[in-house]
Formats: sequence, structure tokens, C-alpha cells
Amino acid sequence: MKLASLRNGRPDGHLIIVSRDLTRFASAGRIASNLQDALDDWSRCAPILKAVSDQLNNREISGMVFNPEEALAPLPRAYQWIDGSGYMTHLERVRSLKGSKDAELQQERPLMYQGGSDSFIAPRSPIVVPSDDLAVDYEAEVVVVTGHVPMRPTREEAANSIRLIGICNDVSLRRLVVDDLQNGFGFFHAKPATSFAPVFATPEELSDYWWNSRLNLKVRISVNDNLYGQPDAGKDVRFDFVDLIVAAAQTRELGIGTIIGSGTVANAHDDILPLKRDGIGFGCIAEARTVEKIRIGKARTPFLKEGDRIRIEAIDRNGRSVFGAMDQQITLLGK
Amino acid sequence: MKLASLRNGRPDGHLIIVSRDLTRFASAGRIASNLQDALDDWSRCAPILKAVSDQLNNREISGMVFNPEEALAPLPRAYQWIDGSGYMTHLERVRSLKGSKDAELQQERPLMYQGGSDSFIAPRSPIVVPSDDLAVDYEAEVVVVTGHVPMRPTREEAANSIRLIGICNDVSLRRLVVDDLQNGFGFFHAKPATSFAPVFATPEELSDYWWNSRLNLKVRISVNDNLYGQPDAGKDVRFDFVDLIVAAAQTRELGIGTIIGSGTVANAHDDILPLKRDGIGFGCIAEARTVEKIRIGKARTPFLKEGDRIRIEAIDRNGRSVFGAMDQQITLLGK
Repeated sequence: MKLASLRNGRPDGHLIIVSRDLTRFASAGRIASNLQDALDDWSRCAPILKAVSDQLNNREISGMVFNPEEALAPLPRAYQWIDGSGYMTHLERVRSLKGSKDAELQQERPLMYQGGSDSFIAPRSPIVVPSDDLAVDYEAEVVVVTGHVPMRPTREEAANSIRLIGICNDVSLRRLVVDDLQNGFGFFHAKPATSFAPVFATPEELSDYWWNSRLNLKVRISVNDNLYGQPDAGKDVRFDFVDLIVAAAQTRELGIGTIIGSGTVANAHDDILPLKRDGIGFGCIAEARTVEKIRIGKARTPFLKEGDRIRIEAIDRNGRSVFGAMDQQITLLGK
Repeated sequence: MKLASLRNGRPDGHLIIVSRDLTRFASAGRIASNLQDALDDWSRCAPILKAVSDQLNNREISGMVFNPEEALAPLPRAYQWIDGSGYMTHLERVRSLKGSKDAELQQERPLMYQGGSDSFIAPRSPIVVPSDDLAVDYEAEVVVVTGHVPMRPTREEAANSIRLIGICNDVSLRRLVVDDLQNGFGFFHAKPATSFAPVFATPEELSDYWWNSRLNLKVRISVNDNLYGQPDAGKDVRFDFVDLIVAAAQTRELGIGTIIGSGTVANAHDDILPLKRDGIGFGCIAEARTVEKIRIGKARTPFLKEGDRIRIEAIDRNGRSVFGAMDQQITLLGK
């Protein structure tokens, strides 16, 4: 099934079940007041939500028209958001930029940082930044939402904890990255609020697109309608979601509704922008600039500026959007 | 007023109003189902909660006996937990340990890191660690809980956003700190779940103990009934809570119920342990060990081990506990 949260004036929104083709929805208000409530009581709620989802997909109930403009992030706020480093290609490309030191170590175990989870950005809301000279970048990522995970879980416990899958844009202010890391306490100001695509899907909904704790879908990114990337999230995975969950829980339990991010999806290639129709491209601009420096001697793709429109969605082999699209404009604070 | 959350089998517990002397409580179940719900609707809930609090303190209602063993953390889970560095003495004492680089920078603006907020430890529950050879340490801190804070707030907006005040133990695994920082992404494994004292208090409840966005109370720490510290949280403050909130919101809004920590409370002095009755002592063991190295050539206070009991509470000028005590045993995972 696919779940989303509609704007209703409350911080957590109104939980809905969305049809597989993302055109229609049914309210889940009688089952759980919001997605966190459903996750908190998943063994009771999931079968009932699934039954409604089946009816909706079989057109036994017609539902209402789903308008992604009305969607909040599927979890509009969460109790935990941990972002990992699943794709080595991303780390290799941005390593010099980030000034991180230990390449070998990063191959052995995933890096992770704790992100702000108090207010995620809705899929069609503007990305508000205090200034656009902070090297505003997108990072296209896959995420999973977990149930409770005990400290030091087995791989099986980790795999079984995955409740929902989606995609996000881990908006990054590159100019503040070095500063954050030099402070020695890690990412903070460089990682403002994160955006999410309109729906989360259960593993079984994704059938063979979810396999071996990884998402076998292309994540397509365009900026102002120019294709910037369409890397395959199922390829070049160094750490899958079981690896990431196990690593995250080494000194702590993970509470219900914890969101774990894959890190920027990245495939190995040496494309540069503008991208050919079948090019692979980049899950973030920083990578595009690194490859440009190597191939043509200078970085030429600019970071995002006020008014730029960034669109990110995961596409199946028939070209259909699986989680719906983030389609957002960069906006300056106070404008 | 003073608020707490009682264990009820649900992740957020049952909201209660606790009498000033911490002996009795009244249920707030008819006003809000839990503390986050009350914060989400604070302008409606706060006056009603305050009225019950007044009745309880005036003995117009007798209430029930408050047992801190039954208390969860006042916010058992939160959407955001940001820990700052309000006290320079702490940073100076642990700087070599943490390998952070820029002392001057740290005087200009507070360091901060994002902590895990998905499951806080109840005030009398054990502190479960995967192993006690990780240099388990306590960090006694003051916290505030905010309402919504816009990005780049004025100092007045920041001050007015403070809803509740409390204390916590930002449990730290020192042996993992260097590792986390070398990874370059910041604290993660070194900062497992945080403990909280049983109640949060509103600013007006604290009268002159809350002044100028700082808490003028001693925070008393003992390990196995030996006094380890009683630093004054109102002294040697480099960054007060308004500074910390303003700094935290430079590139993001802060959602309702964000918890901001002061960093380890630390006063300048050159006491060593065992502490004299009027000694000041230390908000964490790492500081005690640093001063020992300087004064007697070697660190002799051990980090916490399995079975150690750590007690932390804030004490007013009449010796009364203001938020109740954390009183917790270090326990190994699986035991």
C-alpha cells in the first residue's frame, strides 16, 4: 500500500491511503489519526490499511482525487532522521569538498549523521533558504521508515523492522559544510529541513523493485526541466538498508518511526552535464562539479539559486512515478 | 507549573501536573493526551494546566501521590534534540580529548549537535550500554523546550519561545567520541539515548531561579553516593538559551517541542575529587580527569562501570530538588 498525509492545519496532517497509480485516495482517519499513530500500532493498523488499499486499487471504492499539492511529507515530522552513506561514489566525489579523512574506514562501515526531523518540507512547498549564496544543493536519496529496533539488532531484526520506503531531498548548504565539520561536532547548519516525495510505500507494494534491502528504481532529477540525473538506486550500493539500520543501532535502540536515509544515490560513470537522454548524471550538484573539474578543468554547473525549480521522483521500468514527485522552488527567507 | 509524563504503556505516556514540592499530582488527561499534544496547542492548554496546578499547590485538590519511579522522561520522545555548548569551561577541559580545532571560533558562536530524540531514558530506568569499556560518562545539562521558532529569529522571539525548563544527562561514550569526530560527520555512536529528570517547569514557576535565559540553580551530581559536582548553572555561562536558540535557527525553523541543551554545566575552579562539602566539582567525569592530569599528573577518577549509580538533580537555595532526581544504574545490554 501507499500512504500519504494531507494538510489539515495540524502538524501531523491527515493520514490517507493512495492508489497505486497515485490518482485517488481514501481517508485513513477511522484507522489512525496520523501516520505516526499508525506506526505506533502497526500490527493492528497495517492489515486494515491494506484492506482499504486493496479496495481502492480494485476500484471497489472510488476514493477522491489525490492532489500532491495538498500533501505534506508522509511523516510531516518524525522522532528520528538518520542519514547514512550507502553509495561510495558519492563520498568519493565529494570527499575533498567535505574534508573527511579516512577513505578506508568509510568502506568498512557507513558514516551517519543525525538530521533535523522536527519539520520536513512538503513535496510541493518551496525550499526556503536564508540566502542563495550558501551553495544550495539537492541530495536525492532513498529512505526507509522502521518500527522499533533493539540495540545491536541481528540482520534479520533489522530487515523485519522496515515498514515503509520513500525518497527525499536532503537539502544541503555546501558553503556551510566545511564550517560545520571544522567545528568538530558534525553537520548542523549545512543540513536544513529535508523534503519528501508525497507517498511512502510498503515493501510488498514495491514487489521486485524492493529486493535485498535496496530500491531497484531510477531516481530522476531535473532542475528547471533540464535532466541532471537518473541514477539507479539499486546499483553501486556499498551499504544496503540492513547494513545502515544495524550500524545505526550499535549504541542505541531506534524508536518507532525512525527514518533512515541511504545517502545521495550515485552510480559510477563519467558523464557531465548537460546529460544525454540515456545518461546517468548526478544525485547532487557537488558531484557534477567534481566530475567537471576532472574532465574539463573547472566546475561549471552552478548551485541552486532563488527561483530554480528542482524536481525529483523515482521512476519504474514503465516510466511511472512510484512515490510521486517533489517539485519545489528555491525561495529566499522573507520573500 | 510542573509537568511530567507517567508510564501508561504508550510511547508518550500520560501527562500529569505535579505539585511544586513534587509530592502529589493531578492528571492532565482531560486537557491533553500527552505533553507534545499540549505543546502543539499551548495557548489553549497552558492556562488550563496552570489553573489545575494552582489548585494542586493551594490544596484545593488533593491529587495523588507522585512516584518518580513511575515517571517517563517528561517528553518521552521529541521531534528534535539539539545540544549546544553554553559553558566554555567544559569545552576547554575536554578539548584535547575531543580533538576539536578552533578554540577562538567556539568563543564566538556555540557549537551544536543534533542528538537522538526518538526514545529518552526515564529518570529511574537503567542506562543500558553495549559495554562498559567505552568510557561511559555522564553530562549534567540544563534544557529548555521551545514552541515554534522561525528561521533567523530575533532575540525576543527566541526568549518568548521558551515553554519549559528541565535537566538531563547527556550520556556519552567517550571512547567513541574521537572515532565519531574523525569520521567527519559528527557525534553519533558516542551519544546514545539521553536521560531526563522527572519534571519540566515553566519559566514563571521558577521565579528568580530563571533569569536572563539561564537557570540559577546548582546541579548536584553524585556517583554511588559520592558527591562529584554541584556547579551553578547560572554562572560562567558563555551562551545563554537565547543565544543557543538563535544559533540553532540560523538555517532552519525549530518545530514545536524542540529541546535545546546547554551543554555540560561547568564552573571554573581547580577542585579535584573526592570533593569537599562546599566544593564545586564536575558536570562530567572527563573534566574531572583533565583537572587530575594537570594537578596530580594522572587521571584517576574512573569512568562509569556496570552497577554504578549516578544521581543528578537541581537544588534550590533551601536544598529542595526542583525537577526531581535522575537516579540510574549503569547496566549492560542483555543483562
